[in-house]
Amino acid sequence: MAEQVMLYEGKAKRIFSTENPEIVRVVYKDSATAFNGEKKAEIAGKGRLNNAITSLLFSKLMESGIASHFVEKTSELEQLVKRVTIVPIEVVVRNIVAGSLSKRMGLDEGVKLEKPIIEFYYKRDDLGDPIINEDHIAALKLATTEDLETIKEIALRVNDVLVEQFNACNVRLVDFKLEFGKLNDGTILLADEISPDTCRLWDKDTNAKFDKDVFRRDLGNLTDGYEEILKRLGGLSCSK
Amino acid sequence: MAEQVMLYEGKAKRIFSTENPEIVRVVYKDSATAFNGEKKAEIAGKGRLNNAITSLLFSKLMESGIASHFVEKTSELEQLVKRVTIVPIEVVVRNIVAGSLSKRMGLDEGVKLEKPIIEFYYKRDDLGDPIINEDHIAALKLATTEDLETIKEIALRVNDVLVEQFNACNVRLVDFKLEFGKLNDGTILLADEISPDTCRLWDKDTNAKFDKDVFRRDLGNLTDGYEEILKRLGGLSCSK
Ligand SMILES: Nc1ncnc2c1ncn2[C@@H]1O[C@H](COP(=O)(O)OP(=O)(O)OP(=O)(O)O)[C@@H](O)[C@H]1O
Ligand SMILES: Nc1ncnc2c1ncn2[C@@H]1O[C@H](COP(=O)(O)OP(=O)(O)OP(=O)(O)O)[C@@H](O)[C@H]1O
Ligand SMILES: [Mg+2]
Ligand SMILES: [Mg+2]
Repeated sequence: MAEQVMLYEGKAKRIFSTENPEIVRVVYKDSATAFNGEKKAEIAGKGRLNNAITSLLFSKLMESGIASHFVEKTSELEQLVKRVTIVPIEVVVRNIVAGSLSKRMGLDEGVKLEKPIIEFYYKRDDLGDPIINEDHIAALKLATTEDLETIKEIALRVNDVLVEQFNACNVRLVDFKLEFGKLNDGTILLADEISPDTCRLWDKDTNAKFDKDVFRRDLGNLTDGYEEILKRLGGLSCSK
Repeated sequence: MAEQVMLYEGKAKRIFSTENPEIVRVVYKDSATAFNGEKKAEIAGKGRLNNAITSLLFSKLMESGIASHFVEKTSELEQLVKRVTIVPIEVVVRNIVAGSLSKRMGLDEGVKLEKPIIEFYYKRDDLGDPIINEDHIAALKLATTEDLETIKEIALRVNDVLVEQFNACNVRLVDFKLEFGKLNDGTILLADEISPDTCRLWDKDTNAKFDKDVFRRDLGNLTDGYEEILKRLGGLSCSK
């Protein structure tokens, strides 16, 4: 068996090689970070919950015909996924005004948008992940025009499926961040994770937050909200 | 004769009504501001130079078939222009990396872009004129999709004409900001000013700056560069 090497350690996950060069192993961590890494904590249970929720959502997306890098969940903290070359763009889809959109544009949090807004951020921690437009993406050669069209199309389809999915659980999908990668044959594939770390999720009745804003804004116990999301999505909560 | 009322006082110009409701009078000021108004000074001659240069450039654009709000220069500091409702978007066209693009994207100043980059900024001093994309423009209803297409098309045509114009004077047009307005009949019209306050202009041989960066970065006497631009464009310099 080929040795398994850690290929990358991020703030939320570690990526390891496997015997199969086309497959990598993702190990979810309990670390929580916010404000570009300035605020940090270890939160027991977060890794397990994000792994469970991401696995569940990628499976549901596949049932709706949206492929992703996800292959299978192999343990509490681990997934096997297809290895991709990550497109260095964070794709944010917004349905309701919150967070940086509210601050930057002077719009009230909670206002429903008539149509989803897509934003692109350049994945560059050293620059603070600046917002960019399609001309910047072309100039920096981050993605071809064709790949960017594919990415936008998939992002909006993911939004449709997830809005409906969360709606059925009495949860508002406020906004979320996606990452995409490229297979060796050039196929664009949805990658990374979809979890309460990367989505804003509000209870439809109370507007209670079930996502990383609870950590960012010190609103209470983070994993309570994540557990609630997993439960509502029909996944078994493994703790308590 | 109807009383002439000051309709608006900005950082660089005052706008007055005239007897003709479709025409306003622009009076150029000597004030220089930078960093969203944080840095301020009065610079004798700046108003006169910006009025002369803007008048000259709008005339040249008209000769190249690009209409603008410009009607005529009526005195050293004054122009008559068509009254428009300003679209609250600053349209920036970039040919060479400089300023905020360099800082935000980690690119070196002076690098030539393969294709011009267009950026949109929301004209909101209280928010610090944040950069926005076309989805934000739609959500905020700042311009219709159709009007925005017209604006981008005109901006690129203006760029082509001005690049050539400045090139003939041995000046590199690095980047510039445009504003557009709407006539009552819905026509989109190029408006505001095109001057060394709103363009980055570098000598082709020495890279000497002839624009507001001289003020922003304390590089010397601001109006020397503006005089030089007016002279090279073939306008008569009125001082000295
Ligand atoms: N299928 C995949 N193949 C290769 N890399 C992947 C895949 N899916 C996700 N990644 C990358 O794994 C890395 C680790 O994830 P993590 O969320 O911990 O990173 P991060 O701290 O958010 O940092 P980064 O800014 O690099 O995303 C990320 O860079 C992510 O883009
Ligand atoms: N043809 C026009 N009709 C009406 N208003 C105009 C016209 N051309 C320019 N303006 C507006 O005149 C105002 C005064 O110009 P000035 O450059 O001094 O403003 P400013 O300090 O840059 O502030 P602002 O942020 O409002 O542009 C600007 O708001 C500009 O958009
Ligand atoms: Mg991440
Ligand atoms: Mg101005």
